[in-house]
Amino acid sequence: MYSLLRRCCLLFAVLMPLAATAAPDPLPSWRDGAARRSILDFVARSSDPASPAFIPLMERVAVFEHDGTLWPERPVAAALRFAVDRVRARLVDHPEWYRREPYKTVIEADEAALARLGERELMQLLLATHGGISDEEFSQIVNQWLAGNRHPRFERPYTALVYQPMRELLALLEAHGWRSFIYASGGVEFLRSHVEAVYGVPKERVIGNQIKTDYQMRDGRPELLRAQRVHFSDERSGKAVTIQHYLGRRPRLIMGNDASDENMLSWTAAGEGSHLVLRLRHDDAEREYLAPPADSRARDGAGAAGWQNVSIKDDWKQLFSGEAPVALR
Amino acid sequence: MYSLLRRCCLLFAVLMPLAATAAPDPLPSWRDGAARRSILDFVARSSDPASPAFIPLMERVAVFEHDGTLWPERPVAAALRFAVDRVRARLVDHPEWYRREPYKTVIEADEAALARLGERELMQLLLATHGGISDEEFSQIVNQWLAGNRHPRFERPYTALVYQPMRELLALLEAHGWRSFIYASGGVEFLRSHVEAVYGVPKERVIGNQIKTDYQMRDGRPELLRAQRVHFSDERSGKAVTIQHYLGRRPRLIMGNDASDENMLSWTAAGEGSHLVLRLRHDDAEREYLAPPADSRARDGAGAAGWQNVSIKDDWKQLFSGEAPVALR
Repeated sequence: MYSLLRRCCLLFAVLMPLAATAAPDPLPSWRDGAARRSILDFVARSSDPASPAFIPLMERVAVFEHDGTLWPERPVAAALRFAVDRVRARLVDHPEWYRREPYKTVIEADEAALARLGERELMQLLLATHGGISDEEFSQIVNQWLAGNRHPRFERPYTALVYQPMRELLALLEAHGWRSFIYASGGVEFLRSHVEAVYGVPKERVIGNQIKTDYQMRDGRPELLRAQRVHFSDERSGKAVTIQHYLGRRPRLIMGNDASDENMLSWTAAGEGSHLVLRLRHDDAEREYLAPPADSRARDGAGAAGWQNVSIKDDWKQLFSGEAPVALR
Repeated sequence: MYSLLRRCCLLFAVLMPLAATAAPDPLPSWRDGAARRSILDFVARSSDPASPAFIPLMERVAVFEHDGTLWPERPVAAALRFAVDRVRARLVDHPEWYRREPYKTVIEADEAALARLGERELMQLLLATHGGISDEEFSQIVNQWLAGNRHPRFERPYTALVYQPMRELLALLEAHGWRSFIYASGGVEFLRSHVEAVYGVPKERVIGNQIKTDYQMRDGRPELLRAQRVHFSDERSGKAVTIQHYLGRRPRLIMGNDASDENMLSWTAAGEGSHLVLRLRHDDAEREYLAPPADSRARDGAGAAGWQNVSIKDDWKQLFSGEAPVALR
């Protein structure tokens, strides 16, 4: 097995030099600079069997945080906005939510407090609103919501806000035999419901916290229904544990953006062999958002030696796909 | 993303007919019969966009039980034999094991009782012997054990006992754009330690029960160490729940062999769209083993309408790769 993929990569490696003079720029939305150069250099060296930085095909595994790395997570991530809308829609049946956190915060619509909710609260919201239905039904609800809602600032569907430079990076890696996984902090099922349509990435490449399911018979047919329990939480032990659970190895390329990603970045950086650790800096107040102070502090922490920062302001010509840079609000 | 793979599959689809007259038999170790014909028919129809049984590339996901489906699990599966050897080796430090189950069974070396141990007991054995080390270290211990031990009847390394007809089926599926996953009932880490070398399948394609890991600093370097807890157990809710957890969808092709696989087979069979449900029958007492009575009963159960049995005795010309059929002991 896997031999077809390997053959295709070999074919690709053989044909690429022939087309070298006409090869289009693989990262057209990236400005020349340290970030772009370190990516191109790493991809070239890790594909070259003669290089000491060569990485065997099986080990070419990359992990990308989703919210804040592949699309914006300000003012609040789409998964959280979705959960909030669902809580509000179901208040009639749950008057007790008016007096209990995190529902109280959600109902009172304090945007700043919403943005501070942690993963545990988010999972609690998702649980409260979606127990007892199947993943297929949940997926339909999510897709209906995505079709009917727009980002409050960019006034486009959330699914149209994937960063174009990140699409190019994912395509570059795939062309070199890498398998890229997406870490969904806002719940695996939310992202799996649209990841294939939006990214062309199969569902099993989405990893992270999940809600447990139960095997039940419904109308004489076996179904998996969403339970009121979270499968596991990475809050204490961090994202590295979750990556190991799904992939069985340290990634060789990893990219995150905020303090909650430090643990998986440190773990990847401590691995043997060549690797690339990227951290996206939300430093473009005009075209996007500034990261909150906590993330700015984290990003200059002691463990960050050798990590490559990617600046939205300096490294990206264009933010979103197929459009000119977004104008000021 | 995924576009390279898709292009390669298209290329493959374009080139295949040109070579049709010279095309080698993709399943040379399979005898002509209902099993072989249903496989070839299903693979052809699911790849044909004009067929009502067509399956889009993203949905071509197959799951195979490992022990008893891809290699023998009699008299006991390799993962269990490994755990038993580890318990015996560590008895000096744990005299209390002489009086406590499942250790007592293990120490008394009753093969029949060993074969009856459930997944919970097996995971308990693996936990008892391998807490506090990293997955990399565990992997080394497993590979050393595999290099030094042979199957008691076939007198070959366990890794030389992969069924040749199953290798051919995996390769056939891969050539048609399928992603095959392996369900490791004997613990994910045991199989991940050698799955890439033995099957050419990347580690993340191995799913099943796992032992939890903890993120810790060791010599100033972040490490994931194996904890004394199981990540989750499929005993109550069954293997379908675990597949959904990893893959986010029902498989379109599934294959198992004993009663513990019924749940995932039923769930796959209840899915919409075309699918193939295969069940391996251990019915060849001369070349291999007979399944115990419990599995024979299960295999003719009420839910099995439309499932395709595969008979080792009737459907397979050859059992193991690169060798003539194994002689009687």
